[in-house]
Amino acid sequence: MPSIDGERVITDLRRLAEFGRYKTGVHRPTYSPEDVASRNWLAEQLGAAGLDPAIDGIGNVIGYDRRASRRLLVGSHSETQPHGGWLDGALGVIYGLELARAFAADPDCAGLGIEVVAWADEEGHYSSYLGSRSFIGALSEDEIDRITGRDTGKPLRTALAEAGYGGRPRRQVEPDRYLGYLEAHIEQGDTLELEGRRLGIVETIVGIRNFRIVFVGEQNHAGTTRMARRKDAGVAMVRLATRIHDCFPEVAGPRTVWTIGRMLLEPNAPSVIPGHAEMQLQFRDPDAARLDACEVRLMALVEAAEAQGPCRIKVEPLAVSAPQPMDPNFQAAIEAAAEMRAPGRHLRMPSAAGHDAAVLAQKMPAGMLFIPSIGGISHHWSEDSREADIVLGAQVFADAAFRILRAAA
Amino acid sequence: MPSIDGERVITDLRRLAEFGRYKTGVHRPTYSPEDVASRNWLAEQLGAAGLDPAIDGIGNVIGYDRRASRRLLVGSHSETQPHGGWLDGALGVIYGLELARAFAADPDCAGLGIEVVAWADEEGHYSSYLGSRSFIGALSEDEIDRITGRDTGKPLRTALAEAGYGGRPRRQVEPDRYLGYLEAHIEQGDTLELEGRRLGIVETIVGIRNFRIVFVGEQNHAGTTRMARRKDAGVAMVRLATRIHDCFPEVAGPRTVWTIGRMLLEPNAPSVIPGHAEMQLQFRDPDAARLDACEVRLMALVEAAEAQGPCRIKVEPLAVSAPQPMDPNFQAAIEAAAEMRAPGRHLRMPSAAGHDAAVLAQKMPAGMLFIPSIGGISHHWSEDSREADIVLGAQVFADAAFRILRAAA
Repeated sequence: MPSIDGERVITDLRRLAEFGRYKTGVHRPTYSPEDVASRNWLAEQLGAAGLDPAIDGIGNVIGYDRRASRRLLVGSHSETQPHGGWLDGALGVIYGLELARAFAADPDCAGLGIEVVAWADEEGHYSSYLGSRSFIGALSEDEIDRITGRDTGKPLRTALAEAGYGGRPRRQVEPDRYLGYLEAHIEQGDTLELEGRRLGIVETIVGIRNFRIVFVGEQNHAGTTRMARRKDAGVAMVRLATRIHDCFPEVAGPRTVWTIGRMLLEPNAPSVIPGHAEMQLQFRDPDAARLDACEVRLMALVEAAEAQGPCRIKVEPLAVSAPQPMDPNFQAAIEAAAEMRAPGRHLRMPSAAGHDAAVLAQKMPAGMLFIPSIGGISHHWSEDSREADIVLGAQVFADAAFRILRAAA
Repeated sequence: MPSIDGERVITDLRRLAEFGRYKTGVHRPTYSPEDVASRNWLAEQLGAAGLDPAIDGIGNVIGYDRRASRRLLVGSHSETQPHGGWLDGALGVIYGLELARAFAADPDCAGLGIEVVAWADEEGHYSSYLGSRSFIGALSEDEIDRITGRDTGKPLRTALAEAGYGGRPRRQVEPDRYLGYLEAHIEQGDTLELEGRRLGIVETIVGIRNFRIVFVGEQNHAGTTRMARRKDAGVAMVRLATRIHDCFPEVAGPRTVWTIGRMLLEPNAPSVIPGHAEMQLQFRDPDAARLDACEVRLMALVEAAEAQGPCRIKVEPLAVSAPQPMDPNFQAAIEAAAEMRAPGRHLRMPSAAGHDAAVLAQKMPAGMLFIPSIGGISHHWSEDSREADIVLGAQVFADAAFRILRAAA
């Protein structure tokens, strides 16, 4: 059985968090100088662990094991949310690195290969799941040409060139190379904590639908334009947003969540009536029928708002992901490993967050392990997990990978 | 009677609009390189018109007439709104320049002085009416130390230093130097156009109250945080904004206008629940009692929203200006001049926009002339006025100044 070095896991996580440190968290947007430096550091660590490292044309860092006879792909993403947490994707990447080292050091694991990956831009600074979509062949050159930075407007091509990735080949999944994909992650919610459990076995990853809603009014002077003749795009936006928050509970299920995380006014000046406004609405559920019901309600609310006037409203569907079940055998392997190390302290659960594992599951069996988030805090610099949970998770993750690889013999 | 040169007025307005041209409008924020260059150009024109030009420590451009025995101060502001119009403040500045030239050329005007001013930052890129407040002694060094750029966060001190104004004295009004202040401006509304009039005589400048409203919630993950435990600052903001738009008609009068022109979410990412949000609310009315009623209602709505939770809400009053009546004798002089050049085509009216004249009126008699805005469009690059109205306005403005200066003999 491979044995992980808990101290080494913590040390590597802390080292990785130095790239873009912000308070006790990390600000490391995809393709930022800090992100590029952290990917170079990761590639070095993969090399030192005996893997053959590459950073490809979309920024994915992959450590290949050329000698193994059976392989698992193991990892997560390494960029962070703006002023985000130090664990998030980094945890799964460092777990992958530690598994590669533990397997290499254990004679029982001869021929069993852990190939490690740090995906690019799961967080969508340019476009969600960019790296994993590229890897499974679901990202065209045309799409790359069109993508621009969410906050900067910078063309993705420019960002890739500045990062030094321009012109490099994009690595893609080779048929039959892997038994499957494993990803570990912090839960990012408080279910494990509330239930007193230390490990979560993911059954399904929620589906996510995203929409950009644009309001077109008429920019004008905030003093001289009488109320009756205004076409205030900001008013149209806050009214529709409020309607959504009022009406979604009627169609939502117990696990549905919806968020308007992004809003823009133009020109966003106190004495100017906004002529243009936009917001992004996102909703999630493990059940596709529930997502459909939310979308139908959204469209009805938009139609009613537009009929009321005076602004025009356009809805543009953005990234969509279907609910994605995890492989039943992988779930069983993770659960068995969890039961061995922490009897009764684990839980099968859906993932309310999207993950690269949902993308990989379209091409190969996939499984996910969660560890608890303190207070359920996530996507914030104060996000954290207990060290004991981080170390326990790494060992259970290694055990689960060993079970899967050995079972395939 | 001084006679203005209409072609010269149009030529100078077009030249000034070259500094920061944007489509058919102008983008010339206060202290931007384009703004600084335009102020240098204005100072040169004032010198060529026989005035003694100065640019002071806040960026006001002032042309002094050292020989006159009686003087009017005449002008407006020269920076623009973001992607704003080519006339707005520029019209009143170029009118001032033209009046100085017309008076200098006319033997009837011997001893009658037109001193011209281009105020800095009426539009509030740093703080509204910065230049005129400085001039009347209502801007302390302490306040300058505290002010930062609305969009850039740049300290005002830094902006002044970069503009080359750091360390220069700030010019202030000298007691008894002026009979009063005259300002011309585009109407920025559609009252003159709808009524078929070509000239507006301002009776009162509306009072304006501004508030920053801050919502403090809890930033968290948009997938894993159940709806029931969220503290979404963005939800709190759109709900209060909608309440304001729903309830203000109950306290508003026929001339009241209110605007939420600025909104910010943090971190403004689609997959993150906003932990912080803020908006700026502004309302205007010619009647101070009506402004009080609006403020009382606002505070009641905030209190109710905060009581409902789950976010904390803070209201911070920003710039306030009281309704400001224009001098009755100046109104009469402008009206008589208007009746002579365009019989029956003029209108007494309030100004629904704030102007530097409201600041100057605190220290001396003040008067304002409006010309029509095509379609009432303002604070947008497409703002425009008919050339014939621009030329007529300049002549009426000169006549009115002549009447005021001559009457004081």
